[in-house]
Amino acid sequence: MSQVDTVIKVPAFGPSEARSATGARRFVRLDAPFQMHRGGVLPRLDIAYETWGELDQHAGNAVLLFTGLSPSAHAASSPEDQASGWWEEMVGPGRPIDTRRWFVICVNSLGSCFGTTGPASIDPRTGEPYRLNFPVLTIEDIAAAGREVVHHLGIRKLHSVIGPSLGGMSALAFCTLFPEMSHGLVAISSTSRANAFAISLRSLQREIIRSDPAWRNGSYAADRPPLMGMRLARKLGMITYRSAEEWDQRFGRERAGGEHDAGDQFGVDFEVESYLEHHAQKFIGQFDPNCYLYLSRAMDLFDVAEHSGCVATELSKPGVDRALVVGVETDFLFPLHEQEQMAECLERPGREVEFVALPSLQGHDSFLVDMDGFRPVIARYFDRS
Amino acid sequence: MSQVDTVIKVPAFGPSEARSATGARRFVRLDAPFQMHRGGVLPRLDIAYETWGELDQHAGNAVLLFTGLSPSAHAASSPEDQASGWWEEMVGPGRPIDTRRWFVICVNSLGSCFGTTGPASIDPRTGEPYRLNFPVLTIEDIAAAGREVVHHLGIRKLHSVIGPSLGGMSALAFCTLFPEMSHGLVAISSTSRANAFAISLRSLQREIIRSDPAWRNGSYAADRPPLMGMRLARKLGMITYRSAEEWDQRFGRERAGGEHDAGDQFGVDFEVESYLEHHAQKFIGQFDPNCYLYLSRAMDLFDVAEHSGCVATELSKPGVDRALVVGVETDFLFPLHEQEQMAECLERPGREVEFVALPSLQGHDSFLVDMDGFRPVIARYFDRS
Repeated sequence: MSQVDTVIKVPAFGPSEARSATGARRFVRLDAPFQMHRGGVLPRLDIAYETWGELDQHAGNAVLLFTGLSPSAHAASSPEDQASGWWEEMVGPGRPIDTRRWFVICVNSLGSCFGTTGPASIDPRTGEPYRLNFPVLTIEDIAAAGREVVHHLGIRKLHSVIGPSLGGMSALAFCTLFPEMSHGLVAISSTSRANAFAISLRSLQREIIRSDPAWRNGSYAADRPPLMGMRLARKLGMITYRSAEEWDQRFGRERAGGEHDAGDQFGVDFEVESYLEHHAQKFIGQFDPNCYLYLSRAMDLFDVAEHSGCVATELSKPGVDRALVVGVETDFLFPLHEQEQMAECLERPGREVEFVALPSLQGHDSFLVDMDGFRPVIARYFDRS
Repeated sequence: MSQVDTVIKVPAFGPSEARSATGARRFVRLDAPFQMHRGGVLPRLDIAYETWGELDQHAGNAVLLFTGLSPSAHAASSPEDQASGWWEEMVGPGRPIDTRRWFVICVNSLGSCFGTTGPASIDPRTGEPYRLNFPVLTIEDIAAAGREVVHHLGIRKLHSVIGPSLGGMSALAFCTLFPEMSHGLVAISSTSRANAFAISLRSLQREIIRSDPAWRNGSYAADRPPLMGMRLARKLGMITYRSAEEWDQRFGRERAGGEHDAGDQFGVDFEVESYLEHHAQKFIGQFDPNCYLYLSRAMDLFDVAEHSGCVATELSKPGVDRALVVGVETDFLFPLHEQEQMAECLERPGREVEFVALPSLQGHDSFLVDMDGFRPVIARYFDRS
């Protein structure tokens, strides 16, 4: 298995990624076939990642960070890439995951479109993008690709693996697949298995994208993606990522500035509609629709119980000696009781498990927004190490 | 204003309505222009309704029932139309709204498509369907149309006006607009004003329909409606009408029978997806898309505070002398605290207000499903009269 650590030219999707594709991003390339969890192989796998801080002499201070569905590996700014990252307030010198102490690695998930191989990448066997010929993607594949980066960096055991949302699933899958590879686990606003309600919402998002005639059964040209489907699916995502309580306080029944056109009976009336439109427009064009479909479905398929028939049996196996599980009261996509159950199932003699329920108002997205709530919880975990 | 009470030939939308369009349905026709609440007039208005039971000598036993967004006036079976109605278990001889005692009137909402004038009806001025030339529809218009039926039947004061969901809004608007016309009010799983979260979900449903190329800016042919948009919007509706708790228990992670086609990477995997598909297919073709858009937007626009600047001021005005407000703990579209607030605001000296919070598992739809929870609450209200 040959591994190179140079900046490979990998097609990046969208303008925002192009902006941050600077010297900070590194790649691991596996030229041997990568076996996917539910069958199929990738003849070649590139994994994009970024790092912050310095690996200590014994390679004992490494923290592996998995992302939610849509971010790149650019979790925080650095001298090589000064653009703000998706978890800027959490990772950096003097921040809760203090990069003066910890060597932080963030990987772009397998199946995504920010440098790591995914459905938008070229299949070397055909010279064409994989599109729907990409094999079924699972959270376990994302975890296994993360392990390749850890291995490549010469790290035998991580201090911790951490992730929010889909990233929390990936972190949990990592600890399940590779129980000897991390001392600690931090799972944020995540779950051990997708529930029917979240499945129904994600399934509908996928159907909305697939119903856009521009999707063309996945064969859209790179410059003509199904923008309408992506915009509508993103709006549904945004609605489910927040909470009714927050929107009551934030928007209420405030009207949008400017009446809509007399000819448009159903245009934007309310500020909340204007907000959704603005943010959905920003998202589309930045994320490849087929990659979105694959990652979304991978979340539905995730169920740690598949490894041993039972969530509790699986999570109580030997592995990490410390776990922090964080959830938010207003999260209805990954409801709090699922984090509580995860924490309960992780309990075993000799393992320290902490469960934190935050009263944040911003629903599932709170880990990106309610930094006053999240910062002390994450800081305490790493400070006590 | 001429009013006739004969069965007028009004185009009915879809096969299900055609089945129930028997002798039970009656019409009031107003030939004088009907002034809409936010401007515009209907040169002619037909209002479809059904009744059950007998009006007593003093016309004092009448109950007016408004419907949710999608049902027709066929709330219950009767000798003239033996098909089950949308609230079959609630209305009838020996049922909670006992038709041996009460004269029940259910109206098809203004703007709907089951006999009452709406966007799918013919504009007599043009000979063409109104489509998007229908004036802005409000809940107040639906209430005012209901009042025309009450007036036509020679009823000066109702025993009660009652409605669930949109029907609860209509009942509340009725009591606000015509404070002398009812002794009692029963509002179920409803609200005094639409909140930002519910607005965002309904706005997205409308946008999904409008994004279907077959919608053609409202000008689809009657036999070529935007079925894809309606199917997706209906699925979103179904998701928001129920609760995560119910679906966890009902579907969990159960797989759908039969693997999906190998060629369809993103077909139905889970039982919950199969359920949504089945029910969405049943709905489309039964409801006119433009009517759906108008009724959905009318809900967003509803805010009783507009009448006097404040919900509490408006609801505490003189009017009914008895009110029952019912809500469900798992309803996240019309959350319980909104019903609680409605009940609090309805309080005034001499008015008896009861607030009932039900622990039903089925979310917003509970009033249609959890009959064991709802039956005794509604029965107690009417029995005590």
